[in-house]
Amino acid sequence: MVAPFRWLKGHGTENDFVLLPDPDGAVHGGLDAGLVRALCDRRRGIGADGVLRVVRAAGYDDPAARLAAANGAEWFMDYRNADGTTSQMCGNGIRVFARFLAHEGLADPDVALRVGTRDGTKLVRWLDDGQIGVDMGRIRALGEVKIGVAGRRWPAVHVDTGNPHAVVFVDSLDDAGPLRESPWYDPAGFAAGVNVEFAVRLGDAAVAMRVFERGVGETRSCGTGACAVAAVVAGAVARPVTVVVHTPGGALEVRLGPELWAERTGPAVLVAEGTYPIH
Amino acid sequence: MVAPFRWLKGHGTENDFVLLPDPDGAVHGGLDAGLVRALCDRRRGIGADGVLRVVRAAGYDDPAARLAAANGAEWFMDYRNADGTTSQMCGNGIRVFARFLAHEGLADPDVALRVGTRDGTKLVRWLDDGQIGVDMGRIRALGEVKIGVAGRRWPAVHVDTGNPHAVVFVDSLDDAGPLRESPWYDPAGFAAGVNVEFAVRLGDAAVAMRVFERGVGETRSCGTGACAVAAVVAGAVARPVTVVVHTPGGALEVRLGPELWAERTGPAVLVAEGTYPIH
Repeated sequence: MVAPFRWLKGHGTENDFVLLPDPDGAVHGGLDAGLVRALCDRRRGIGADGVLRVVRAAGYDDPAARLAAANGAEWFMDYRNADGTTSQMCGNGIRVFARFLAHEGLADPDVALRVGTRDGTKLVRWLDDGQIGVDMGRIRALGEVKIGVAGRRWPAVHVDTGNPHAVVFVDSLDDAGPLRESPWYDPAGFAAGVNVEFAVRLGDAAVAMRVFERGVGETRSCGTGACAVAAVVAGAVARPVTVVVHTPGGALEVRLGPELWAERTGPAVLVAEGTYPIH
Repeated sequence: MVAPFRWLKGHGTENDFVLLPDPDGAVHGGLDAGLVRALCDRRRGIGADGVLRVVRAAGYDDPAARLAAANGAEWFMDYRNADGTTSQMCGNGIRVFARFLAHEGLADPDVALRVGTRDGTKLVRWLDDGQIGVDMGRIRALGEVKIGVAGRRWPAVHVDTGNPHAVVFVDSLDDAGPLRESPWYDPAGFAAGVNVEFAVRLGDAAVAMRVFERGVGETRSCGTGACAVAAVVAGAVARPVTVVVHTPGGALEVRLGPELWAERTGPAVLVAEGTYPIH
């Protein structure tokens, strides 16, 4: 039985997370996959799409954390999917992570923040309207792949945002069906799985999307997925553009500059806090 | 903005609840339906099938609470569905409610407990194996009705357990489809809506079920629903019998005596506790 520990819950456009404050890596250490699954279970646990362990980069014995510390990031976002696996980066999670640091007085909300992730060190900006912007670096559109659901196949664009994505433009978001299991993809092209976005254009710089996240299932929103979709829109436009991406959980804005450099802005809310488990 | 208050989360066979300790009715008073919906929201809130406000019967200005106090119940279970509406009784919730009282030292786990509900005062027993038994009173089978899903109709038994139920025996639990909306029923027979159980016999005294709860949607388990299904099984057996009811969230046992008197036993677990909201 684990000793009771502190946690918080937060969400960004309804992509929700359990935060585990663990500054010195002394509470959760390796963070057991079984505990992650138990916390994320929506009936038997607290319920979330993933876990964000908040650890000092210098306090985590991991190559990515050591690199983050060398890059001047005090904090490292140890992100886990609801099934207990790791992902490189979580685009909605990093805003919630930053909100937590400001809430706890661990980050100065007047100064841009560096956050270490398994996808490198990210720059986070505090916007005047309360939203949070994240420099997502360069998005890379890698060419055409195929995605399938229930016997139907579409051409898709393979986009690398740090995580692997496949972006499919469909006529209607209903075309993807109930999405209770992963869409079909060619495992030769995506050895570590792929996040799939189904998108519908709403205008030159506006798009609606649904997302199936590997290791999680369909979620209400996906920050890196929004960047992937926006990059495909921007690639068609071929000039710097701000794309509004409407997810089921809310709107995100993606500013795309030269060579598909991206900053994504959106909300981040802390909901509740407490201890787990109860003895 | 509400002032931060204490809450706990618990579940019984994966039917999960936010508990709001409010002994003197001073914290949550009328308990606004909007707050119930916010707490039960699985992405933006804590997430649950319903809310259990824990209030002293004498501290709640409600006819059912006054009756409970007169019947010797110290505590009243003010149960709300996830959509903010009230229900008379929640069969899994009352076990979680009792577990909370014992955990807080508000009930003696060696003595049977009386709990006030909008369906009258219930007797709760603490079993040696850690499970909790609830005297559900008499179950009344009221005759045949019709239930429909997606153009298909089945004969069903109208059962009153304090809540209205319709029990449908199907060939396979998949026959009811994804159950994203309420099954069809005759509104003339169920003016306040109905909970619908789809059941498959597994043997003389064993049954599997799915349930669609009015005001909530499909849930992992429903305690009064398990009693309703067991009563239909026992009615066919026509002698005292113990029926094991397998729900998606776990097994419940229903002991049926003469005239369909029922005691239902099952687990109750407290998961986490904390404060809400975060300012």
